[in-house]
Amino acid sequence: MTTDSPIGIFDSGFGGLTVVKAIQAALPAERIIYFGDTARVPYGPKSQITIRKYAADDTAILMRYQPKMIIVACNTVSALALDVVEKSCGNIPVIGVLKAGASLAVQVTKNKRIGVIGTQATVGSNAYACAINALDSDIEVISQACPLFVPLAEEGFINHPATRLLAEHYLTEIRQRGIDTLVLGCTHYPILRQVIEETIGNGIAIIDSAEAVALRTRELLMESGLLNQSSKAAVPHLLVSDLPQKFSMLYQLFMGSELPDVDLVEV
Amino acid sequence: MTTDSPIGIFDSGFGGLTVVKAIQAALPAERIIYFGDTARVPYGPKSQITIRKYAADDTAILMRYQPKMIIVACNTVSALALDVVEKSCGNIPVIGVLKAGASLAVQVTKNKRIGVIGTQATVGSNAYACAINALDSDIEVISQACPLFVPLAEEGFINHPATRLLAEHYLTEIRQRGIDTLVLGCTHYPILRQVIEETIGNGIAIIDSAEAVALRTRELLMESGLLNQSSKAAVPHLLVSDLPQKFSMLYQLFMGSELPDVDLVEV
Repeated sequence: MTTDSPIGIFDSGFGGLTVVKAIQAALPAERIIYFGDTARVPYGPKSQITIRKYAADDTAILMRYQPKMIIVACNTVSALALDVVEKSCGNIPVIGVLKAGASLAVQVTKNKRIGVIGTQATVGSNAYACAINALDSDIEVISQACPLFVPLAEEGFINHPATRLLAEHYLTEIRQRGIDTLVLGCTHYPILRQVIEETIGNGIAIIDSAEAVALRTRELLMESGLLNQSSKAAVPHLLVSDLPQKFSMLYQLFMGSELPDVDLVEV
Repeated sequence: MTTDSPIGIFDSGFGGLTVVKAIQAALPAERIIYFGDTARVPYGPKSQITIRKYAADDTAILMRYQPKMIIVACNTVSALALDVVEKSCGNIPVIGVLKAGASLAVQVTKNKRIGVIGTQATVGSNAYACAINALDSDIEVISQACPLFVPLAEEGFINHPATRLLAEHYLTEIRQRGIDTLVLGCTHYPILRQVIEETIGNGIAIIDSAEAVALRTRELLMESGLLNQSSKAAVPHLLVSDLPQKFSMLYQLFMGSELPDVDLVEV
């Protein structure tokens, strides 16, 4: 393993591209191998058994590229199967978006009331509350599953009145609970950030777990002496298990740039 | 194969339960084996290669039960992989929801203008237009993909204002094209039938492919002498590839009855 080894990142589908984007912005020289399990997306509504099986498959695919680190860009896997990833990848470090987001939220909150939104599986697991309370047991965590945010983001309904109505539906209660910090506990949600911010109202800090994970990645690479020192910006290497028609549109939506070459892998 | 052999039905997830319900209503004595590929749902946004692979897997699972007939309750598979199902099941008859719905629509339309709504894959395949024009080449088919209808139905947003706004978004253009018949080309859509009917307006006949397939099933069983003559109503046997938390809620939503025993199968 060298400084030039890639960082492996996986997600259930496209959502983890928000993590790729944040890492590219923070660490442009790092080579990234991204796997999106587009043949089996979404993970959020599925059961723990299935999610754990998929997490092992996804890790095995990335391990073929001998990465120096694995980033679990899927909150659902971070919540329910991080131990599966750790067991499947030997001794290399693993960063889950969930712990990175939880840790940043604990640093940011002043009134010790944190809201968390995510998929049904993530919220049902209570993993954010556990991670936050492991750092500070005085913090109250108010969680809300927002299952329609993923399809709305994937279909590009970024600013549609229906998206606003559904944001209102999901966020009304959490808004009334006096939180000062809201964790976007799903890597798709930054795509809907504007609507979420406007619905939740002023004065609430939004924690984007993609940005949190980029900060944590830099720390960890520096500690372990594995930071890539090259001055050349790297292009991410994309792997997917299915190549749907709308892939190119979605890539542009998430990344704001043209689609590079993509390899299809079987799961 | 006997009159007592089961009818095998599969779908990507829960949507095909609308077909189970229609068959139970029309043919209560028939034993039904239903497989829902809940570990890999949805199929609609995925590519043809992946959908064809999944169709072969799904058929193989049902063939273990030696069915007298297979019903493809998934419009996406009916559109893109019916030949795969036919090849994988030997000589038993196969009914796809798509042809059944297309055939009924051709009988119903008077002005020869038919609208079809479905998933991205179904609409992108143009299979409804092909099936309709094979029966009557004078008919004009106007198609519209409505990708958010599946998650809205699966989340139970049956009558929410956001569902009405999205129906308006998807159906405005098709409504202006002078159709007199609208095919619900996805087995989830009957769940949203009321909103769809109110949005598309009066005087347009709605074709529910679940009902169409039940009519076709009865015909085919009578022709082949395989109609079950028992006077006892059978309880469907359910197989799924994943058992999510909300399964019971969704079953009640689709079937209007309590969940029977469910077996988990690996895909």
